[in-house]
Amino acid sequence: MAEELSTKWETPLTSEQNPHIKRGRYSHLTQTDKDVLSRIVEGRACTSGKELADANIDWLRIYRGTSPLLLKPKSTWEVSKILGYCHNRNLAVVPQGGNTSLAGGSVPMFDEVIISLKLMDKIISFNNLSGALVCEAGCTLQSLMDFLDAEGYTMPYRIGPKDTCQIGGNMSTNCGGMHVVRYGSRHAAILGLEVVLADGSILDLVTTMKKDNTGYHLKHLFLGAEGTLGIITKVSLECPVKSPSQHMLFIGVPSFQDVLKIFKKAKYDLGEILSAFEVFDETVMKLINKNLKLPNPLSGESPYYMIIATAGSNRRHDDEKMNAFLSQLEKEGAIQNGFKESRAEAMKMLWSYRENIGVAVKRAGFAYKYDVTVPHDKYVQILTEVKTQFSHLSSCIAGFGHFAEGGLHVNLVTFRTHPSFSKLIESFLFRRVKDVGGSISSEVGIGVQRRDSLHYSKPINAINLMKKMKTLLDRKSILNPYKLLPSNLDGQELLSKL
Amino acid sequence: MAEELSTKWETPLTSEQNPHIKRGRYSHLTQTDKDVLSRIVEGRACTSGKELADANIDWLRIYRGTSPLLLKPKSTWEVSKILGYCHNRNLAVVPQGGNTSLAGGSVPMFDEVIISLKLMDKIISFNNLSGALVCEAGCTLQSLMDFLDAEGYTMPYRIGPKDTCQIGGNMSTNCGGMHVVRYGSRHAAILGLEVVLADGSILDLVTTMKKDNTGYHLKHLFLGAEGTLGIITKVSLECPVKSPSQHMLFIGVPSFQDVLKIFKKAKYDLGEILSAFEVFDETVMKLINKNLKLPNPLSGESPYYMIIATAGSNRRHDDEKMNAFLSQLEKEGAIQNGFKESRAEAMKMLWSYRENIGVAVKRAGFAYKYDVTVPHDKYVQILTEVKTQFSHLSSCIAGFGHFAEGGLHVNLVTFRTHPSFSKLIESFLFRRVKDVGGSISSEVGIGVQRRDSLHYSKPINAINLMKKMKTLLDRKSILNPYKLLPSNLDGQELLSKL
Repeated sequence: MAEELSTKWETPLTSEQNPHIKRGRYSHLTQTDKDVLSRIVEGRACTSGKELADANIDWLRIYRGTSPLLLKPKSTWEVSKILGYCHNRNLAVVPQGGNTSLAGGSVPMFDEVIISLKLMDKIISFNNLSGALVCEAGCTLQSLMDFLDAEGYTMPYRIGPKDTCQIGGNMSTNCGGMHVVRYGSRHAAILGLEVVLADGSILDLVTTMKKDNTGYHLKHLFLGAEGTLGIITKVSLECPVKSPSQHMLFIGVPSFQDVLKIFKKAKYDLGEILSAFEVFDETVMKLINKNLKLPNPLSGESPYYMIIATAGSNRRHDDEKMNAFLSQLEKEGAIQNGFKESRAEAMKMLWSYRENIGVAVKRAGFAYKYDVTVPHDKYVQILTEVKTQFSHLSSCIAGFGHFAEGGLHVNLVTFRTHPSFSKLIESFLFRRVKDVGGSISSEVGIGVQRRDSLHYSKPINAINLMKKMKTLLDRKSILNPYKLLPSNLDGQELLSKL
Repeated sequence: MAEELSTKWETPLTSEQNPHIKRGRYSHLTQTDKDVLSRIVEGRACTSGKELADANIDWLRIYRGTSPLLLKPKSTWEVSKILGYCHNRNLAVVPQGGNTSLAGGSVPMFDEVIISLKLMDKIISFNNLSGALVCEAGCTLQSLMDFLDAEGYTMPYRIGPKDTCQIGGNMSTNCGGMHVVRYGSRHAAILGLEVVLADGSILDLVTTMKKDNTGYHLKHLFLGAEGTLGIITKVSLECPVKSPSQHMLFIGVPSFQDVLKIFKKAKYDLGEILSAFEVFDETVMKLINKNLKLPNPLSGESPYYMIIATAGSNRRHDDEKMNAFLSQLEKEGAIQNGFKESRAEAMKMLWSYRENIGVAVKRAGFAYKYDVTVPHDKYVQILTEVKTQFSHLSSCIAGFGHFAEGGLHVNLVTFRTHPSFSKLIESFLFRRVKDVGGSISSEVGIGVQRRDSLHYSKPINAINLMKKMKTLLDRKSILNPYKLLPSNLDGQELLSKL
C-alpha cells in the first residue's frame, strides 16, 4: 500500500507529517542573527553536522525539525542574552535538555533555534544537613545520583534515561518514574528554580528553604510547562538520605484482583519503606524474553508480574517485613511464584527487566505508545478494551506501569503503520480514560503529540487560563511553540494579536 | 505614656491602625446589594450581631474590619453567583475558612463582603485503595481526621487549630504544621482543586489522579495565594494510610550543636518513620510551666527541649529503632534527660506542651510574633541576635519551631506595646533572615501583616510577576484586597488602570 510506511523508520519532518500545523509568523534567521547569537555563546554554536542533526531529532526518532542553529550557553547570563535577542528579533526557540522527551517536546517543529542546556552542568551547592541541592539545569540525573551517593543522599526520583536526561528537563516535564510512591512528584521535592523568561529577564526563585510562604508559589508553574513559559536554568531540590537497606520482590500474580489485594496490603504492611510498585503483563514478559533474551526469572508463567521495592534505614527490619509480606501472599494464594532479592547486582539485573521494556517493545516493531493514568480498579478494564478494539491492527498490545499511581503504559505494536491509526487509537483510549476520570498523560507530558487532545483531561476554561498564562509570560510565543497548548492557541494566533 | 496601649487588648480597627492603607475604589454595599446577595444564599446571610462581629475579627484579636455582610453559601454554584454579582457591581470580598489566620488574611480590612465556607463541609468521595479524598472547602481538619481514621487512613498534615481550621484555608495558606518532615507540604499531597474565580466562573481542576501531566499545573498557583486569586471550593488530596505504630521522644539537650547532631542522626537512624522533629528553648519551657501549669516532664532543666515523633507500620521495629536511638544519644552525651513514650494518651499530653506554646505566650502578655525559616545551623544565631537587640523591650523572647524544615517562631513578649516596635523588630529580623537565605514567612503566610515586607524574600521581578498574575485572574482586584501583595499593588492601582 502506498500509504504504508517502512518498518525501518526514516524519520520524516514533523512539519510534513503535520501539514495542519503552520509555521508561526516568526522572523527567519539571518546570517547576522547567527553571528550575533554565536558570539553570545563564544563559539559554542553549531550550524551544521551530526550534532545539529541529532539535536533536530527526538530520542524515539519520530519527530524531526530543521533548525539551522544550536546554541550551547554556559551560564544563565548567556541564556538571558540569547532570549533577549530572540525576543527582540521575534525568533522562536526550543529549549533542549537530554532530548529524551517521549512527546516530541524537545525538538524543533520548524526552524526554531535550539538552546541546549547541556554545558550548564555545575553543582552549585549541597547542604549535607538539610539535603538541599542547588545545581544548573544541564546536570544529568545520573551525575547527580553519583554526587549525592558520596554524600549519603539520593535523588528523590529515578527514570529510565538517567544517563542522558537532565534535571532541567526533568522539572520542565514533571517527569514521574519509579519512586513517586515513596518521594512524591517533582512538586514535592522542589525548593526553588531560576528561570529565564521569554524576554530574557531572569526570575530568581532559588531558595533552599522547604517552608516559604511568601506570595504566590510561582515555581510550580514551570514544572510540567515543557519550556513554554521560561527556560529553567537552576534547580534547588530537597534530597532524601540514602537508604542503606534495599530489597525487591519479583512475583507472578494469578489475577488482577490479586494485584489490587497486594497493592492494598503493601500500603499497610510495607508502608513507609515501599519505594516502587510496578506491574506488567504476560505480553510484556514474552517481549522481554524474546527481544532482550532475558529469561523469565520465575519458574512458571503468570498473567501479571510485579516488582515491589523497598528502601529503609534498617536492613534487618526491612528484611523481616519483606519476608513476612511474601510468605503471607504465598499463604493467601495471591501469588503463583515469587522471590525476594537483596543483593545489589541481582536487583540491578531485575530492574533491567522493567527499565528495558521500551527497548523490548521497540525491537518488536513500530509501536503506538500511550501513557495514561487510570483509577487502580480500572487498569485492566481499559487495557482489555483497547485489546478488544485494536487487536486486528496489532501484533501485540503490551500493558505495564507504575501501578501505585495508576500509571498505565499501553503499547500497540503494529503490523503496519498508518497516519490514521494514531488518531483512531487516541480517540478511543482517551475518551475511555476521560470516562473513568483518568489522565491522558501520566508522566511524559503533552509536547506536540497530545496537544490537540488536552481537552480530554482539562475543561475548556482551564485550557483558556493556560493560554492566558502563556500570553502573560511569553507575549510573542517564542518559547517552544507548537507544543503543549492546543493548535488553536498557536503562536500565530497570539502573534496576530500583537 | 499616651502611645502606650493597654495590655488588655481591645482590638482597634485595622484601617485605623494602618492609615496608609486606603480603601480601594470599590462600590459601597447598598440595600439592594444586600437583598440580592442574601437571596443567593437563601437567607444564610448575616447583617448584624455576634456572628458578624466574630467574622470581622481575627483569632489573635489583632485585626478588625467593618464588613456589614456575611454570606454562608452551601454550594459552589452559590459561591459562583455571589462572585459573579460582586464582580459586576465592583464589590470587594474576603473569603473566610476557620478564621485562624495568624497574618490577618481572613478578615476584612474595610467593608469587604465576607464569604464564609463553613457550611460547605461535605465529604464528596474517598477511595480506600488510592487514598484520594475529595471534599468541600469548609470541612474542618479534625472532621477529616476523624473520617479518615475510620477508613484506616490519616491526613498528611496536622496543625494546632485542627478543630476550627478548614481544608480550604489550609490549602489557601499552604499551612505547614508538624508532619511536613514526613508527608511534605500541601504541594506534595494535592491532587486537585475546584476554584471559583473572581468573575464567578468555576475552574474545575478536580482529579483524583496522582500523575497528571496535562498542561500547566494550575492548581499549585492557588496554594498559598491566600484567597487572592480565587476561592477554593473543593479539594482533592492524597491521604496516607494510618500508621499503627506511633512513638515519641521527649528530650532535654545541652547545646545547639547537639540539636544539630541529633537531627542528622534522626534522618539516618529513624529515616522513613520520622514524623515530627520539634525544638523549643528553655524560655518556652518556663512559660509552659508557669502559664499552662504543666511541669517539666524531665527531671532537670536544659537549654533546649525536643519532641521527636515517629509513625510506622510495625510497632516492634519502630520500638527497637527508637530505643536504640535514645540509648545512643545518651551514650554520646548528646542529651541530658529524655524518655520514650508510646501510649496514646500520654503522647497526646506531651503534644499539648508543643501545641499550646501559643497559649502560654499569650498569657505572658502581648507578644510580637514572627515565623521565619532559616538554615538549620543559623537557627540559634538569629534567635540570639534578636535577644541581644531587643531584650530591653521584652519581658521574654521565646524561640521554637518545626526544626526539620528550619522553622523558627520568634515570640517577643513586651513590657508595653507600641506601633513602632513591630516595624523595628521586623526590619532587623527580616533583614537578617534575608542575609542568611531564609524566608520571612515559614508557614503563616503574608496576609496584611507582612505584605510590605515581601521584598525581603522575593526579588522585585517575582513580585511584579505576582502582580501580573493577580491582574490576570482578578482584573478588578475584588478578591481579598490589601492582602499578600505589597501596598503599591493595591486594588486602587489596578482599578485605576481599568
